[in-house]
Amino acid sequence: MTVASATPDAYQPTDRTVPTRSRERASYDRELVHSILDEGYVCHLGFVRDGAPVVLPTLYGRVGERLYVHGSTGSRPLRMAGGAEDPGLPVCLTVTHVDGLVLARSAFHHSINYRSVVVHGTARQVTDPTERAAALDALVDHVVPGRAADSRPANAKELAATAVLVLDLAEVSAKVRTGGPNDEPEDLALPYWSGVLPVARTYGAPVPADDLPADTPVPAYLTRR
Amino acid sequence: MTVASATPDAYQPTDRTVPTRSRERASYDRELVHSILDEGYVCHLGFVRDGAPVVLPTLYGRVGERLYVHGSTGSRPLRMAGGAEDPGLPVCLTVTHVDGLVLARSAFHHSINYRSVVVHGTARQVTDPTERAAALDALVDHVVPGRAADSRPANAKELAATAVLVLDLAEVSAKVRTGGPNDEPEDLALPYWSGVLPVARTYGAPVPADDLPADTPVPAYLTRR
Repeated sequence: MTVASATPDAYQPTDRTVPTRSRERASYDRELVHSILDEGYVCHLGFVRDGAPVVLPTLYGRVGERLYVHGSTGSRPLRMAGGAEDPGLPVCLTVTHVDGLVLARSAFHHSINYRSVVVHGTARQVTDPTERAAALDALVDHVVPGRAADSRPANAKELAATAVLVLDLAEVSAKVRTGGPNDEPEDLALPYWSGVLPVARTYGAPVPADDLPADTPVPAYLTRR
Repeated sequence: MTVASATPDAYQPTDRTVPTRSRERASYDRELVHSILDEGYVCHLGFVRDGAPVVLPTLYGRVGERLYVHGSTGSRPLRMAGGAEDPGLPVCLTVTHVDGLVLARSAFHHSINYRSVVVHGTARQVTDPTERAAALDALVDHVVPGRAADSRPANAKELAATAVLVLDLAEVSAKVRTGGPNDEPEDLALPYWSGVLPVARTYGAPVPADDLPADTPVPAYLTRR
């Protein structure tokens, strides 16, 4: 295998980011990785606790080549990452979008169209106040673009209760499956329907809070969605 | 903390399944856990490789109190689980549904409405042919209920290329957030819209494979979705 260097356009593959199977689906393209990350806001964060794996769903945000996750200062992974001087917490952060259910004539060739990104690295506490504030804005704006500027910023007490971890986008890969089923030639005449059922994440009409004054306008960043 | 025993209605909480925060969102209710698992088909499977966490998206199926995942016999987690006589692979299997984006007046109280299930345990190879066949049917039917019986079953060669892992539902918890934002009383008069943007997974019209005869009817299990 030829291992390319990281370039402005691509991440450098490593032992951990080259899959053992379906290698043709793997990509290290920076723009593709960013687009998959930016379309989502919930990741699955894996870490090791007492030798065993733990996988928790959590929000994330991206600023350039850095991902941020946050949580209560009392939460497990954030405590485990230690302070700014500590070595940090080895993590694997994975984001997956499901785009379609792939129905083949054979049970064996059933599949899913998806786009995923897997990031390996070490998560560290963010202590710099400017970076922390930018990270928290990015977390809100990742979920609802434009919302950070249209809400009350965190106050000192809230900032003190919030831990922010940063993970560099360095050891990272995307994996993408698209298209129809890959049936065996001898199965094509079988009488089973074959194709793709598209899947999408959709948004309903905004539901105002019970205590929201009735004349409060719905912001454009919600109605656009 | 009072630790209840497992009952027909509930899983027994353990150190790993009692969260360090937002305990009021945790549940061990068996029916709730099953309903969250049965609504999904993509999980995030975590395991430890060379001391570091790995989180990969993969399909799963449920049969009673057992979850099944499958893959190529050459894939990493399936190789690492070893044979039926081996001790198996410690895993954490997590399923998450996003139900809404929760917009509070304050950036700090932004949240997500979600339902998740986290399963800790040891994944083992399934070698019994009857259990393997049932597991593979469950995997297909979990994605598209009714499809396993309406496709060509796996042949001997395909079965030999497929590894199936089983994970008992024993150390398991659900976590659920519902409802509107929890704003601070002093923030209620702020001029920001506040409420929930509902999120759902939706399905488009089935797209037939390029090589599907035009007169092939779309099965009812797809049009119902």
